[in-house]
Amino acid sequence: MELGLIGLGRMGANMALRLQRAGHKCIGYARHAETVEKRLKEGAISAGATSLSELVGQLKPPRTVWLMIPAASVDATLEQLIPLLSPDDVVVDGGNSFYQDDIRRAATLKEHGIHYLDVGTSGGVWGLERGYCLMIGGEAEIVQRLEPLFEALAPGLQAAPRTPGREQVGGTAEHGYLHCGPHGAGHFVKMVHNGIEYGIMAAYAEGFNILRHANIGKHPEEIDAETTPLRNPEYYQYDFNLADIAELWRRGSVIASWLLDLTAHALLTDPDLSQFAGRVSDSGEGRWTIKAAIDEAVPAGVLSTALYERFASRGEADFADKLLSAMRFEFGGHHEKQG
Amino acid sequence: MELGLIGLGRMGANMALRLQRAGHKCIGYARHAETVEKRLKEGAISAGATSLSELVGQLKPPRTVWLMIPAASVDATLEQLIPLLSPDDVVVDGGNSFYQDDIRRAATLKEHGIHYLDVGTSGGVWGLERGYCLMIGGEAEIVQRLEPLFEALAPGLQAAPRTPGREQVGGTAEHGYLHCGPHGAGHFVKMVHNGIEYGIMAAYAEGFNILRHANIGKHPEEIDAETTPLRNPEYYQYDFNLADIAELWRRGSVIASWLLDLTAHALLTDPDLSQFAGRVSDSGEGRWTIKAAIDEAVPAGVLSTALYERFASRGEADFADKLLSAMRFEFGGHHEKQG
Amino acid sequence: MELGLIGLGRMGANMALRLQRAGHKCIGYARHAETVEKRLKEGAISAGATSLSELVGQLKPPRTVWLMIPAASVDATLEQLIPLLSPDDVVVDGGNSFYQDDIRRAATLKEHGIHYLDVGTSGGVWGLERGYCLMIGGEAEIVQRLEPLFEALAPGLQAAPRTPGREQVGGTAEHGYLHCGPHGAGHFVKMVHNGIEYGIMAAYAEGFNILRHANIGKHPEEIDAETTPLRNPEYYQYDFNLADIAELWRRGSVIASWLLDLTAHALLTDPDLSQFAGRVSDSGEGRWTIKAAIDEAVPAGVLSTALYERFASRGEADFADKLLSAMRFEFGGHHEKQG
Amino acid sequence: MELGLIGLGRMGANMALRLQRAGHKCIGYARHAETVEKRLKEGAISAGATSLSELVGQLKPPRTVWLMIPAASVDATLEQLIPLLSPDDVVVDGGNSFYQDDIRRAATLKEHGIHYLDVGTSGGVWGLERGYCLMIGGEAEIVQRLEPLFEALAPGLQAAPRTPGREQVGGTAEHGYLHCGPHGAGHFVKMVHNGIEYGIMAAYAEGFNILRHANIGKHPEEIDAETTPLRNPEYYQYDFNLADIAELWRRGSVIASWLLDLTAHALLTDPDLSQFAGRVSDSGEGRWTIKAAIDEAVPAGVLSTALYERFASRGEADFADKLLSAMRFEFGGHHEKQG
Repeated sequence: MELGLIGLGRMGANMALRLQRAGHKCIGYARHAETVEKRLKEGAISAGATSLSELVGQLKPPRTVWLMIPAASVDATLEQLIPLLSPDDVVVDGGNSFYQDDIRRAATLKEHGIHYLDVGTSGGVWGLERGYCLMIGGEAEIVQRLEPLFEALAPGLQAAPRTPGREQVGGTAEHGYLHCGPHGAGHFVKMVHNGIEYGIMAAYAEGFNILRHANIGKHPEEIDAETTPLRNPEYYQYDFNLADIAELWRRGSVIASWLLDLTAHALLTDPDLSQFAGRVSDSGEGRWTIKAAIDEAVPAGVLSTALYERFASRGEADFADKLLSAMRFEFGGHHEKQG
Repeated sequence: MELGLIGLGRMGANMALRLQRAGHKCIGYARHAETVEKRLKEGAISAGATSLSELVGQLKPPRTVWLMIPAASVDATLEQLIPLLSPDDVVVDGGNSFYQDDIRRAATLKEHGIHYLDVGTSGGVWGLERGYCLMIGGEAEIVQRLEPLFEALAPGLQAAPRTPGREQVGGTAEHGYLHCGPHGAGHFVKMVHNGIEYGIMAAYAEGFNILRHANIGKHPEEIDAETTPLRNPEYYQYDFNLADIAELWRRGSVIASWLLDLTAHALLTDPDLSQFAGRVSDSGEGRWTIKAAIDEAVPAGVLSTALYERFASRGEADFADKLLSAMRFEFGGHHEKQG
Repeated sequence: MELGLIGLGRMGANMALRLQRAGHKCIGYARHAETVEKRLKEGAISAGATSLSELVGQLKPPRTVWLMIPAASVDATLEQLIPLLSPDDVVVDGGNSFYQDDIRRAATLKEHGIHYLDVGTSGGVWGLERGYCLMIGGEAEIVQRLEPLFEALAPGLQAAPRTPGREQVGGTAEHGYLHCGPHGAGHFVKMVHNGIEYGIMAAYAEGFNILRHANIGKHPEEIDAETTPLRNPEYYQYDFNLADIAELWRRGSVIASWLLDLTAHALLTDPDLSQFAGRVSDSGEGRWTIKAAIDEAVPAGVLSTALYERFASRGEADFADKLLSAMRFEFGGHHEKQG
Repeated sequence: MELGLIGLGRMGANMALRLQRAGHKCIGYARHAETVEKRLKEGAISAGATSLSELVGQLKPPRTVWLMIPAASVDATLEQLIPLLSPDDVVVDGGNSFYQDDIRRAATLKEHGIHYLDVGTSGGVWGLERGYCLMIGGEAEIVQRLEPLFEALAPGLQAAPRTPGREQVGGTAEHGYLHCGPHGAGHFVKMVHNGIEYGIMAAYAEGFNILRHANIGKHPEEIDAETTPLRNPEYYQYDFNLADIAELWRRGSVIASWLLDLTAHALLTDPDLSQFAGRVSDSGEGRWTIKAAIDEAVPAGVLSTALYERFASRGEADFADKLLSAMRFEFGGHHEKQG
């Protein structure tokens, strides 16, 4: 198939390359002409365009235009695209848009007879080789029309052992792409995926932090009047090799996962993680997941805690902490301990 | 009544003064002779002692010896005291001991015919004027024997409006002291009291932090690629006066409390709380409360979260945070944003 | 002053009565004529109206119309009101509206020259006697115009001991009402007030639950293969009197509060709380507080946990729990223990 | 090698079978003679014993005796074993003991010249085929002595793709077994493993619960006065196929894991999980992990929340919830909504 790709950053370029390798034809556009040229040389795209109208002009109707751009730029891009497109064309948003925006955008495009798919995409920098997990929202017939693209991007059946019983059900899920529901469904599922991701990451992070401090009984000097003495220092005398433990858990344990694979690599390379300061960013999906949970009245304690730990890592709890110290001073005359 | 008081720090001295004002006679001992002299001059004690044997010698049997010393010093002090005391004497631990230690200590003292009471004491630096809330564990007859002391220390009935219906039940609870149960019961109740204290303090701290950041929509420059843009900055344009809001809530609101009174004072004095760094200490009770909850299989999410926020305020989450950044780098090539 | 009051439910009627007692004149409207008549007889209102136009007709311009109606009815009522009102009239929303709605409504009313105030009101069924805590958003001159009403509704300075230092600052906060900021500020502050309320309530609830289960060591029969045995049952032998402990903490302790006063009464009346099933409702404010915290990137672990505990109390975690049991069965062959 | 195996339950029998398949010789003992006979027929053991002395008698010194019994039975079994064993024999505890017990037991056995290893074992019912992940604590030379057994039980290098860079480091971790440190280290690491397991499981459970309720906008009838109306029901109209989504995420996504593999199977088999009631058990490790975190002052919000969700699933929050309803009734006259 042929598609126009808007956005040739690392993520878009890798997806284009995987599509081209599978025999599809990508015509690419990026804001900077050098980017387009670079991707042409890499073979990620078959042809380039230096404007949206040039891009659209190179595609045979009904067209497929795939956006791989920051969520904040989608509306502006659509505004430019709409007059250039024709009825029955398809716009795909493969970025990290908020699913409620998808619903609005799909309605706007529909007024012009243009179709819209939202495709949540997971895979990161590894997707080129491993394939991309695709969560798709929109009309069934349009999903079907673009199925060759999804098949090429997705990891495919052989990427994991088959779930017993799945052979009787079939479907595309076990190939790594899925039509999840109407407009917004794809990004909704991707949103929750990221929410879960935060929770799992935090579970490992907390656990390894407990292992790392398991030698606290060796440092009695840290104890003073404002600190509770450790009752049994003899139980905290372990100097664990975290890289080895992460590696160990990759085989046979209940908590083996791809994130653990990455953790094992990170700890092997830099056991103290000294290249990181511990200021953890969060993208919108983790936040939106919590808001959805609240709208649904579904308890999401683990996912929220994981999100807040990221906020706190960036100093966002500082004023709250100062207020706690202020209250302690007010009722007990406690002065803060110096760090 | 007459009692021997071991430990003449701020807390012990204030309690002694309140007891003396009520007509009781305190004989005080502290490790440093100057402390004893100082408390004599202040009128907190009627007589001083420079050794435990001197202290015990000045008391008529059956004696009452009240400890107001750090929990970590109690066992050593008891070891010295036991040979000096006689059967039917009473030892009171008014400090912040772990209730399981009370059970052990009571058994040890009982072997020598000595009674033991654990008295959890709340009131901080305000207790001298407001009175102390006393949570008592031990044998009923011994609690009764010392009731005049408890009555003098406690705030008394008039310190709060009477609970409707309480007049038909009576009891000492509404006077501010209570025999809570057998050995350890006093410190168990005090432990949970402090656990609740952490939770309430954190509720206020988080709430005021949300108010303080309600102007975040005015600072769009803080947004970049690694930060989710605020979708509706127009909704976060408030510059709240936190001192005024704390004051406001003191009257008529559902969340009026003594801790709020203190918060209002702290924010009035130093609206930015700039004299605090936000490194919040925690005493043992908060930790033991969570351990008790776990032993009982009782969910304690709020109290645990409050405790962990204190840990995190002291940098104890740092390695976990670094690991999160490391994972993000591994799967997405995300570099940490500089603070 | 004279005001028109729309909504004569319990809350509205009590507020009207307090206003009338202070010499103000309330003209009341409710959807059911019987309600209006009832409130007339009670003296809560001086005159009644059976339609909005009748109500508006009885008020001298510039009018003050105060809404005490469900948040969901405000928009419909405003639509009816706008054509009846004149420029320079004031509409007050004293209910529990979402602050972002205030901003929108104020703009709509402004187009007609009508002023708008949002007044978050705390006090519940106790407000008639104790006074109402009023959190006000809108234009300063309009707040000033209605100050006599706020003064009559608020608890007044004498309702709490003065904060040391406040006498040099003054302001209305210590009288129990406050102009918090522009449109929406009042309901924003009320929203966070309720968020804090949830956190404080949960702190007490968890703490008392730990006290209630402190006798778990007496019930060894509850232990089986799927349950971790309690290592030290001897430490959990306490049968605490929760009503007494709640009463005890009301005087001299750090955690004294109005919510504790109410808790003491509830536990005195019904120690097992057997009249409650434990399905805890939540109003919108708790949810909006968390959403605001997330928008601001402020960690709110305690407030979120408190909210989720309410969700879970209503069975909203059930499917998640089933999934946990299903996973345990999958990896370990664990069957669920019967309750 | 030859070893004596005490405990022939499902877990022990599978381990024995895997060892025998690898050429080791297992002599088995169980309390019931029929169990021993059954395992003999299955080929899990080469010979059986009907008493501990018979078992020990069949082993050539220096012996290896491996316990696969409930943690609660270990001390009693050791008491019987000690007089039967000789210096330089090795006892292995492969069950789920608390690591602090290991430290004590190792010291006791050392007095008799007997060695002790604690071996945390993960793998569940799948270990026979997949191999067991072994976390080992004790003396290095004893670990080395038993290495052939660990090698046979562990999954082996080929069970997962090699971590890039690991080939330069080597070690046994990538074979699936690891000498983690001195006595207790094995069970400490296993304890944290299970703590992390709870967190990961909860992350998935919460996420799927959010997906399951994504159609809440279709049920407006559930809204009443005590329930916050959903502001935007149009955003919650999704009927997701959870089995398909779990399957989808297994390939290419960031959250692929073995627990997700199991989840996909569970949801495929029984989409509503109707065979489960949602009363989730917890073993000791999750609890001990939190206690260790608290001793170390390490924040563990996600892991704690996961544990508390299990407690709550079994009704342990009920009294706390009743107290919340009671407070709401006290301050606002709110009656509980019927379920």
